[in-house]
Amino acid sequence: MEKRLFALTLALILGSVFLVHLGRDNETGRTLIRNASMVLTMDSALGTLEDADVLIEGDHVASVGKGMSAAGAKVIDGKGKIVMPGFVDLHTHLWQSLIRGCATDKELNGWLNGCVLPLRGSPVDGTDAYAGTRLSTLDSISTGVTTVTDWSHAFNPDFARGNLRALTDSKQRFVFAFMASADSWVAPEVRRVKKDVIDRSPLAHLMIGTHPASWNVADVEAAEKLSEELDVPLNVHLLESKADPATDQMGVLRRAGALRPGLLANHVVHATDAELDELAAHDVRIAHNPLSNMRLASGVARVPDMKARNLRVGLGLDGGTNDTSDMFNDMRAAVGLQRAQSADPARYPTPADVLRMATLGGAEALGLEKQIGSLTPGKKADLQVIDAQALNFAPKVDWTSQLVFNTQPVNVQWVFVNGVALKKNGRAVGDTERVIADAQAAADRVRKYLDR
Amino acid sequence: MEKRLFALTLALILGSVFLVHLGRDNETGRTLIRNASMVLTMDSALGTLEDADVLIEGDHVASVGKGMSAAGAKVIDGKGKIVMPGFVDLHTHLWQSLIRGCATDKELNGWLNGCVLPLRGSPVDGTDAYAGTRLSTLDSISTGVTTVTDWSHAFNPDFARGNLRALTDSKQRFVFAFMASADSWVAPEVRRVKKDVIDRSPLAHLMIGTHPASWNVADVEAAEKLSEELDVPLNVHLLESKADPATDQMGVLRRAGALRPGLLANHVVHATDAELDELAAHDVRIAHNPLSNMRLASGVARVPDMKARNLRVGLGLDGGTNDTSDMFNDMRAAVGLQRAQSADPARYPTPADVLRMATLGGAEALGLEKQIGSLTPGKKADLQVIDAQALNFAPKVDWTSQLVFNTQPVNVQWVFVNGVALKKNGRAVGDTERVIADAQAAADRVRKYLDR
Repeated sequence: MEKRLFALTLALILGSVFLVHLGRDNETGRTLIRNASMVLTMDSALGTLEDADVLIEGDHVASVGKGMSAAGAKVIDGKGKIVMPGFVDLHTHLWQSLIRGCATDKELNGWLNGCVLPLRGSPVDGTDAYAGTRLSTLDSISTGVTTVTDWSHAFNPDFARGNLRALTDSKQRFVFAFMASADSWVAPEVRRVKKDVIDRSPLAHLMIGTHPASWNVADVEAAEKLSEELDVPLNVHLLESKADPATDQMGVLRRAGALRPGLLANHVVHATDAELDELAAHDVRIAHNPLSNMRLASGVARVPDMKARNLRVGLGLDGGTNDTSDMFNDMRAAVGLQRAQSADPARYPTPADVLRMATLGGAEALGLEKQIGSLTPGKKADLQVIDAQALNFAPKVDWTSQLVFNTQPVNVQWVFVNGVALKKNGRAVGDTERVIADAQAAADRVRKYLDR
Repeated sequence: MEKRLFALTLALILGSVFLVHLGRDNETGRTLIRNASMVLTMDSALGTLEDADVLIEGDHVASVGKGMSAAGAKVIDGKGKIVMPGFVDLHTHLWQSLIRGCATDKELNGWLNGCVLPLRGSPVDGTDAYAGTRLSTLDSISTGVTTVTDWSHAFNPDFARGNLRALTDSKQRFVFAFMASADSWVAPEVRRVKKDVIDRSPLAHLMIGTHPASWNVADVEAAEKLSEELDVPLNVHLLESKADPATDQMGVLRRAGALRPGLLANHVVHATDAELDELAAHDVRIAHNPLSNMRLASGVARVPDMKARNLRVGLGLDGGTNDTSDMFNDMRAAVGLQRAQSADPARYPTPADVLRMATLGGAEALGLEKQIGSLTPGKKADLQVIDAQALNFAPKVDWTSQLVFNTQPVNVQWVFVNGVALKKNGRAVGDTERVIADAQAAADRVRKYLDR
């Protein structure tokens, strides 16, 4: 019996490998992007190349250079195109495509009270979570995102599982921030998820989500304990709304021992100088979400002051609190908000700065810079190919700037994650029509529980 | 001889009419958008309809309602789609697609000195102006703009003619703001343009552009005189940069007698209370360009204070000074900038407010509200059809808000101007590839004269 089970398992595994192999675009797992008009490597040693090739082999970037030959490789013509690393969306809530357009007249707490908190204890389930997350991942791929940090409210175990299934099905690289609490089901479920899902996938990473506030100390302590036990970072919303400082967020984190390297703090709009100093001293990482800060009237984050303290800052779309799923728009908002506020065009960040924040900067914030964030040979093949021969982009004047100010998601022609094409010839791979229909059905179910 | 010429002319006219007729999509010139999931009429008497039809007959909206039949009409399936008025881009410089990406690290005057002013007296010509403008018009159509206010620097007569030819070829509705000066060629050329081009086209309107400043009084006076003679409005950049108040712009306008109803003032970022009062007292119209104000570090315009004074305000993309040709982004920037600055989600404008500003508001600012700006039967058929069944837009929760926060230009499926389809099934009508190649060639010529 034992032997039969083993043989059956082996057959299943071998069969799956064979099917995956058949599903590849080519036999060798090699793709050559040939003669790209610009290759923005984001690797300071390689710089930016013109009329160059990028060779993908298996899951990684094999080489970047000129005049490559690669027999048997699938070839993508790079003429008139830009190759650059895929975006790292450092902060989002993928399930929240189900509440797009909800309470767009409210600030953070009004929006939370109307559109998110009522779902705690409501019968939202894994089917709902799957539907919202699946839609968001396809949308995210469409705008060139290859790694997504998904802060999940994990309302119940089934919801968390549905959320994770959709992330796995997306084939994007992901960090799942599981909102933990002192509730008895949470720690065992998070441990199980780590063992059964995260540790088995080359694409998956785990964080522990929590919300530091004076009314939430027990949950923060439980989350910090789990974060230490599993050796994965904590991921929190920090000083986002002008109401947040009154909840002693910094004090709660400090006393829980959570201010330590790797902590990912989202937003950090209403921080004092001393608080920024303290975050920098503990090598806390920051996700800046300018579009969300605009939609929710949160304010303008002190990004130049973070830069002055060498804090690692990446960019997030923060879906749900921001319905705009356009990373180019997020980059230009990061530039433009600072400029409009200061009336200083030299203010940090510049277009080149936000391109780094949206790629290598996000990778560094996650501690994944050895794997992703630049087109460095040996790193994972997470990249995008952008068509610069478009009405909204041409003619060529200064492409680095045009990537930030001109580009629209529709210009993203190809997206590769771990060497696998997830957007091909301008279309995200997947049954878009069905995904949209499923998300609509889930949104209609979820709406019943909202306080709108 | 006289008779033969008459016969020949008649034959040519009849032939042209026949050819135009053949070029129509259907024989009756009727298009029925059937069963649209939402029709946002922007007409306060009609409101917003669900599952409704819009009938276009010839150049106008024939009716809006339910269950229409229209034998022989071309039918567009409106299921899952939103029909709304086309956008009025109240301020732009279409030729400036040739300098996209130029000096994106500079504020207004640095950018002007590097990228615009060097072209005065340079041999830029009508071919260049045509190429840049043609690209911009196709791009503008792609994002749902049906009326464009093109402030042309008109560097020389040939440049102005090329600019106008491209506008005419675009089939968009346009207002050509011809930058006038005291130079001897200008007034006769503007008079000729009005007689030969503007007055002969149902789509064309004229304004006189000038730049009020203490160092430019003679030109402003010449422009104001021409504006009065031709009975067309003046169109100026006003208090855009923080350096502008020192040039006595308001005083120059006041003394020239130019502060009068219909004057279109672009930007108005650095106005005092008294100056806003004065603009309101004279029924001056304002073009708000939030994306441009962000890119050029101009500041945050006092839009709520304009609203409080009942000033008529529309939205502009301001191409060139803002490379982002996405009217949806422009709308959400108008909302988000105010919210981020004030930390008040109720601050004017709301999503519904910017939808009005971008359509009927712009039409009112131009004095064209009886012709365009809403889907009122009898008004011109300038409208767009937006696909809401897209990864970045679905599911349906609150479409009014989603139009502002979620939409991307790629979602615009159809654009009609004066009843003629200029974007069909998601593609702008035109030889895109050739237009892009011509614009690149022109950009390469123009670049030689820039001070970069």
